[in-house]
Amino acid sequence: MSERMIISEYPVRVFYEDVDLGGIVYHSKYLNFCERARSELFFSRGRSPVVGDIHFVVKHIDASFKAPARFSEMLIVQTEFLSQRKASFKLKQTVVDEAHIKTYFVMELELVCLKGDQVAAIPDGILDLFKVPARG
Amino acid sequence: MSERMIISEYPVRVFYEDVDLGGIVYHSKYLNFCERARSELFFSRGRSPVVGDIHFVVKHIDASFKAPARFSEMLIVQTEFLSQRKASFKLKQTVVDEAHIKTYFVMELELVCLKGDQVAAIPDGILDLFKVPARG
Amino acid sequence: MSERMIISEYPVRVFYEDVDLGGIVYHSKYLNFCERARSELFFSRGRSPVVGDIHFVVKHIDASFKAPARFSEMLIVQTEFLSQRKASFKLKQTVVDEAHIKTYFVMELELVCLKGDQVAAIPDGILDLFKVPARG
Amino acid sequence: MSERMIISEYPVRVFYEDVDLGGIVYHSKYLNFCERARSELFFSRGRSPVVGDIHFVVKHIDASFKAPARFSEMLIVQTEFLSQRKASFKLKQTVVDEAHIKTYFVMELELVCLKGDQVAAIPDGILDLFKVPARG
Repeated sequence: MSERMIISEYPVRVFYEDVDLGGIVYHSKYLNFCERARSELFFSRGRSPVVGDIHFVVKHIDASFKAPARFSEMLIVQTEFLSQRKASFKLKQTVVDEAHIKTYFVMELELVCLKGDQVAAIPDGILDLFKVPARG
Repeated sequence: MSERMIISEYPVRVFYEDVDLGGIVYHSKYLNFCERARSELFFSRGRSPVVGDIHFVVKHIDASFKAPARFSEMLIVQTEFLSQRKASFKLKQTVVDEAHIKTYFVMELELVCLKGDQVAAIPDGILDLFKVPARG
Repeated sequence: MSERMIISEYPVRVFYEDVDLGGIVYHSKYLNFCERARSELFFSRGRSPVVGDIHFVVKHIDASFKAPARFSEMLIVQTEFLSQRKASFKLKQTVVDEAHIKTYFVMELELVCLKGDQVAAIPDGILDLFKVPARG
Repeated sequence: MSERMIISEYPVRVFYEDVDLGGIVYHSKYLNFCERARSELFFSRGRSPVVGDIHFVVKHIDASFKAPARFSEMLIVQTEFLSQRKASFKLKQTVVDEAHIKTYFVMELELVCLKGDQVAAIPDGILDLFKVPARG
């Protein structure tokens, strides 16, 4: 049996800039929301996702759009750790409504560590940010 | 003597999507940050900036870019009420750093009330949102 | 043997707003570039992707980020038709450099036809836009 | 009498990502459209707006939103040179419809030349890009 281990719940308000003429969130914005949640895992601990020439890039995304979120809603981005290798790791990110009833978006993504332009081993301590809940 | 009457201080984190290749906030993003602060004045009181076919559009902007804000910074958007007419009103919005020491951006803007495509009188009660501080 | 049938090649310049502090295209922007290419298939024939309450939403994306595109580059979005069902269809979209040498991004996506909020059969004639090359 | 000297007319399609729930262009997007037109003045001559540590930043904007442009429209960004000083210059940019009948947006802006973080004299030859029409 697999239990969900949610590392962080990051709130995002849906503003004018996020919706299209149907009043629903423009599809690629969910990727932005998820990226903010990942970056905030660094920022909230006084760290940065960019350290010298070490940084992370998205390598692969598998994403399902389950239902449309609308203008003015408060969304929650849930982040879960899935797996790791020497130079890459996988996360699952889910966007739900504030009441945690509706799921709008689910994505599994793979991130790769780069040093400059070269794939590099993930520095010690970084992955703890994605494995240990931000508060508590 | 004119005293500043700041109605709200809205925090905005600078994420990857907000900066350009210089690592500084892309200029038009300050307008987005200020729009979020205005919309949140509605949302935080359980209201919406769109009521039926009544909504507001930006008519004029006079904006000065004082200094570059950078990736990972937490910014504060300060909103002040300036003046009003029957169908329009003016605000001043200032983006400062979290410590309120540096000013990055200052804008005076005029918003016009529309009913569908026609200019319309601002409904009663709306401008209070921009005149009375959100908390307390 | 499977041959590629590229329906359109849509050019996109990489501007300041598209890159992050590394000078490379922000990951979710590739989804925007691909959406522009799909919409332009409608616009270039004097049609719209929104007809009354009929429109299309992205249901699923499987995307690989192959290499980073950089500020000032001219990119090409290639669109290919993959398959169709009654209310949905699948495309492949690839972002390459202007010389067609480097591949930056590859995505398979599924689009669903909606009438209002309900899944609906794709109207006749729409899918031809994705099966017949735009010019000649 | 003052004659208009339009240096370039840059076309911009209005896509899903550019409009809000009213189907009209989100206000700050006009600044992006104008920035693309300025950058393309460099790119179209095989040059870049960033040369070493020399680049330009927007210092001041005075912008009027005249009418709402809508989803699917093709817009034209007109760029005119206004004046120059040693380290800065002023442009006027106007966004009109494809038929040049309607004006959606007018902006006067001041750009400052920076070398790293310091104000610097504009290098020779740069301002010609904003004074001589791109074609012919």
